[in-house]
Amino acid sequence: MATVNIKELAQRLGLSPSTVSKALKDSYEISQKTKQRVIELAQKLHYTPNPYASGLRRKNSKTIAIVVPEVEDSFFSKAINGIESVAHSLGYHVLIYLTHENSAIEDSILKDLANGRVDGIVISVTSETKSPQYLMEYSQSGRPLVFFDRVVDEIPVHKVLTDDFQAGYLACKHLIDNQCKNILFLSIGDNLNIMKRRNLGSSQCVKEDQGKSHIRYKSIDCTADPDQAYKIIRKQFQSKYRPDGVIGAVEKLAISTYLVCQDLKIIIPDEIKVIAFSNLPIAELLNPGLTTIRQPAYEIGKTAAELLFDGLLRMRSPYTPKSVTLPSILESRASSAG
Amino acid sequence: MATVNIKELAQRLGLSPSTVSKALKDSYEISQKTKQRVIELAQKLHYTPNPYASGLRRKNSKTIAIVVPEVEDSFFSKAINGIESVAHSLGYHVLIYLTHENSAIEDSILKDLANGRVDGIVISVTSETKSPQYLMEYSQSGRPLVFFDRVVDEIPVHKVLTDDFQAGYLACKHLIDNQCKNILFLSIGDNLNIMKRRNLGSSQCVKEDQGKSHIRYKSIDCTADPDQAYKIIRKQFQSKYRPDGVIGAVEKLAISTYLVCQDLKIIIPDEIKVIAFSNLPIAELLNPGLTTIRQPAYEIGKTAAELLFDGLLRMRSPYTPKSVTLPSILESRASSAG
Repeated sequence: MATVNIKELAQRLGLSPSTVSKALKDSYEISQKTKQRVIELAQKLHYTPNPYASGLRRKNSKTIAIVVPEVEDSFFSKAINGIESVAHSLGYHVLIYLTHENSAIEDSILKDLANGRVDGIVISVTSETKSPQYLMEYSQSGRPLVFFDRVVDEIPVHKVLTDDFQAGYLACKHLIDNQCKNILFLSIGDNLNIMKRRNLGSSQCVKEDQGKSHIRYKSIDCTADPDQAYKIIRKQFQSKYRPDGVIGAVEKLAISTYLVCQDLKIIIPDEIKVIAFSNLPIAELLNPGLTTIRQPAYEIGKTAAELLFDGLLRMRSPYTPKSVTLPSILESRASSAG
Repeated sequence: MATVNIKELAQRLGLSPSTVSKALKDSYEISQKTKQRVIELAQKLHYTPNPYASGLRRKNSKTIAIVVPEVEDSFFSKAINGIESVAHSLGYHVLIYLTHENSAIEDSILKDLANGRVDGIVISVTSETKSPQYLMEYSQSGRPLVFFDRVVDEIPVHKVLTDDFQAGYLACKHLIDNQCKNILFLSIGDNLNIMKRRNLGSSQCVKEDQGKSHIRYKSIDCTADPDQAYKIIRKQFQSKYRPDGVIGAVEKLAISTYLVCQDLKIIIPDEIKVIAFSNLPIAELLNPGLTTIRQPAYEIGKTAAELLFDGLLRMRSPYTPKSVTLPSILESRASSAG
C-alpha cells in the first residue's frame, strides 16, 4: 500500500509540514478553512498517521494494554500469555481489560486509554462491535493499536489472525467426510468478521459438494450468553431440523451443545457429531473427546505483541499496516468419529 | 480488635497529630529521635493505619487492580467476574495483573501500583509468596488492599476465603466413605496457607478414622507447573505407593491426574478415585465426570470488592480488618463413585 506522509501533503498544499500536522490534530492555531483543505487532501490520498512515530514523542509509560471480551475462553487466556511473554521480556507492564462482549464497555475503555495511560493496545473486539467510531478515532489519533483474531477490517492497523474461511471449510468437510447430512453452524453473532468467514468457509464446502451428498446446511446466532445459547441450541435440537453434525464457532458453543445433548439424551457421536473452534487443554478428557479446530493462540498473541513492540521500539516510517495469518489445526477425536 | 489512632498516639507522646503522622511517613521534616519514639509506641500499641482514611486524601483514579496468579484456572476467571460486577456498578475501571505464580513479578507489580495508579487492590498471592516485605510495606503505607482465597495471615487487612480446613476434611471423608485406603493429597506448594489448611483438614480426617479403616495418607508438592506436575504424579502412580484415592488441591492437578491415568491406563473410578477443588463449568462433561469441591468463586470476588469499596467510598474509622469465610460445596460425580 503506497502511503503519503505529512511532508508530501505539505508540499502539495503549499503549507509547512508543521501547519499540516497541527491541522490534522484539529489545533486551535489553524484556521477552519486551512483545516478543511488539509483534511480533504489527506482523505483523497488515504493519508494514515504513523502511530509509532507519534508514539515516540509521547511520555513512555512502559505499559501496554490487552483488551479482550473475556478470560474464560481458553483462546484468550493463552493469547494473553503469548502477549505477556513478549512484554515481560522487554520490561513492559501489561494491563488486561475485559469488555464482557459489551461494546459500550469497550468504548469506555478505549476513551480512558486515549489519555496516554499506556504506550500501545492489543485488542480483540466484542461480538457487538461493528465498525465503531471509537476504534477509528483511537487509531487515527496516531496511538499504536494491533488487532488479533477478532479484527475490524476497515481500520488500517496491524492485524494477526487465522485463515477463518479455510478453517470453516475444513471443519465442514470433516463432518461431510464422516457422513453428516444436516449440518448446523453455531455462531455468536454476525458482527464479527471471524464468524462470517468461518460460516462462509463451511457453506462454501457444502456448495462444492452439492449434487453429490445432498447436504442441508443452516447457521444460527446463539448470542454470546451461555444460558441463551443453551436455550437456542436445545430448541433447535427439538425442532424438525435436528442436525446430525454441529460446528461450534467458539469453544463455549461446544460446551452448550454437550450440555444439551446430555440433557436430551442425544448420543455424541452416534446421533450427532460435534466439532468446535477451541483451545481447551482438556478437549481429549471430555466425554466423548471433542474434535477441535485449534488456533495457535499463544503464537497469535506473541506475534501481535511483537508487531506492536517492533513499531514502538524501532519506529518505522512510512507505517504500512500488516496482516499476519497463522495456520489452525484440526484435531480429530471421538466427538466426530464416523 | 481494639485499635489506637494517630490522635491517641499524639496525646500519649505529647506531640501534635500532624507530627506523629509525618513521623510515621518517615518525613524529612521530623528528627530521627522523634521518629524513633513515635514508631516504638505505634508498634507497642499495635497501631494500624486506616487505609481508607488516607485513600480519601489521595487523588482518585476511579480504578482498582486485581492481582492474580493466572486466568486459566476457572476459580480466578469467575472471581474476576465477581469483582468486576461490583466495580462496574460503581463506575470504576478494573485492571487485571497476572503474576504467573512468580513472587518477583508480584513484587514488581505491587511496587508499580504504589505510585498511586489505582485506588485499591484485590489480590490472591502466588504459590511462592511467603510473608513478603513488599505486601507488608504496601499495606503499611495505608493503601487499601483486600486479600481473597490465597491470603497472607500476618498482614492485617480484609480477607475473603473459604473454610479450607473443613473443605479438605470433607474431601478426604468422601474418599474414605467410598472405601479408599491409600489417599494421596496433591498440592502446589506449602507456602500457601490454603494448601496447608486443605492438607491439614484431610489428614485430620484420616487421624480421626485411625484404628478403624487403616488409611494410609501422603501429601506431595506437585509445583504450579503443569508439565512438572504431570511427571511427579506419574512417578508416584508408578511407585509402590500407588494411591486409590486422590485429592487435587487445585483444578489443574485434577487435569494432570486424568492425563496420567489416561496414559497409564488406570481406570477412574474403578482403580483410583479423584476429587478436586475446582470451578470448572464442564466438570460433569469430563470422562468420567469429576467430583469437585466448588468454592463460591464469583461470590468471593464480589465480597472482596464490596469490602474494598465499602471502605473506599464510606470511610470507616477506626479500620478493623475483617475475615469473611464463605462455604464450599462438595459435588459428587462419577470420578469418586464407590
